[in-house]
Amino acid sequence: MRIAVLGGTGEIGEGFALHWAEKHHIRIGSRKVDKAEAAAERFNETLAIFGRKGDIQGFDNRTAAEEADVIILTIPYEHVSGVIDFVRPVLSDQNIVSPVVPMTRGEYFEYNTPARGSAAQEIQAMLPEGMNVVAAFHTVASRRLCSLDPAFQCDVMICGDDRRSKEVIIDLTNEIECLRPLDVGPLALASTIESLTPLLLNIAVLNHLKDPSIKVL
Amino acid sequence: MRIAVLGGTGEIGEGFALHWAEKHHIRIGSRKVDKAEAAAERFNETLAIFGRKGDIQGFDNRTAAEEADVIILTIPYEHVSGVIDFVRPVLSDQNIVSPVVPMTRGEYFEYNTPARGSAAQEIQAMLPEGMNVVAAFHTVASRRLCSLDPAFQCDVMICGDDRRSKEVIIDLTNEIECLRPLDVGPLALASTIESLTPLLLNIAVLNHLKDPSIKVL
Repeated sequence: MRIAVLGGTGEIGEGFALHWAEKHHIRIGSRKVDKAEAAAERFNETLAIFGRKGDIQGFDNRTAAEEADVIILTIPYEHVSGVIDFVRPVLSDQNIVSPVVPMTRGEYFEYNTPARGSAAQEIQAMLPEGMNVVAAFHTVASRRLCSLDPAFQCDVMICGDDRRSKEVIIDLTNEIECLRPLDVGPLALASTIESLTPLLLNIAVLNHLKDPSIKVL
Repeated sequence: MRIAVLGGTGEIGEGFALHWAEKHHIRIGSRKVDKAEAAAERFNETLAIFGRKGDIQGFDNRTAAEEADVIILTIPYEHVSGVIDFVRPVLSDQNIVSPVVPMTRGEYFEYNTPARGSAAQEIQAMLPEGMNVVAAFHTVASRRLCSLDPAFQCDVMICGDDRRSKEVIIDLTNEIECLRPLDVGPLALASTIESLTPLLLNIAVLNHLKDPSIKVL
């Protein structure tokens, strides 16, 4: 499978790349192609250190998206609409994954409910007819994911309206041994899982926990 | 400490009563005093089976609340305003705890955001000046709490604006060995933890998990 990780030059992009590179083609996207290429080279070096195979590649966001089967938007909420405008010409039938969280930091981290209910529903409304958003990966502690920390365990809460798209993402999540996918229902419920990110960040600060993640027991 | 559990004749009331009865005076409240007395008797019998001491008592909600230091509102959202109206004459300086969740069940469980942002903020607005609400215990799987299931572990997310009230509830939570209190910030953030209840219920149904609870790792 070809997986484009747009805005994927940071830790969360690296985490996905390291875990999926042996089995899939990972296409790191960035606004600047040289930044994406540098990140891909760095991730390939880390892969080698961990003794894993793979050939991660870097592209501008549109090129990364063009031949992908799955597009993951690891992009700050503020930039999502610009990135989608830029890649729109190459959007057709890719599965779109949104880990996007609209939040601000004042004294506390706070979820800012968008007019359509959630970032995922906003993104759905921006896409060409027939494409489907799956909301997922909001609570993955990226530093622990990309360190391949053997003690790391995290539940990935997933929602979406299209059964087939959701199953693609559930399967990809299952391929990462430290993650467990949990179906939480339709896209209309995305705000609840998006708001877990500021909740976890507040919990981390107030309770002195480092890189916390969520498990349902 | 005298702890009133209003609407406490069900499983969650029993769970609190069984865990706190050795150290505290538990006052089960109900709209009907005979229902509260019957529940208290049943809980005392269960205490004896588990070899724990205690003398749980049953009252109408107002009498239960009157001499309490802590009042826990284990009441469906729809009945909260009626119960607060009924107990208002005896409210003065008790710590009020809200595990209340405004939700409905259609095809999925759904959180219904109240006009003030959360049930806890609505309750705060109903109370006499100077009283403080702490929101807590929304994600405690009550059946597992009252079974004293040794494998049960659950994080209790707690928010509130008054430091002292919040610490009373954090300490009470710490006394229950299977629970860990986590401070999640001010009462303005209560909607996020209230919405975890319908999230967990959907997860339970969609992923065939029984009585799920949440842990932050």
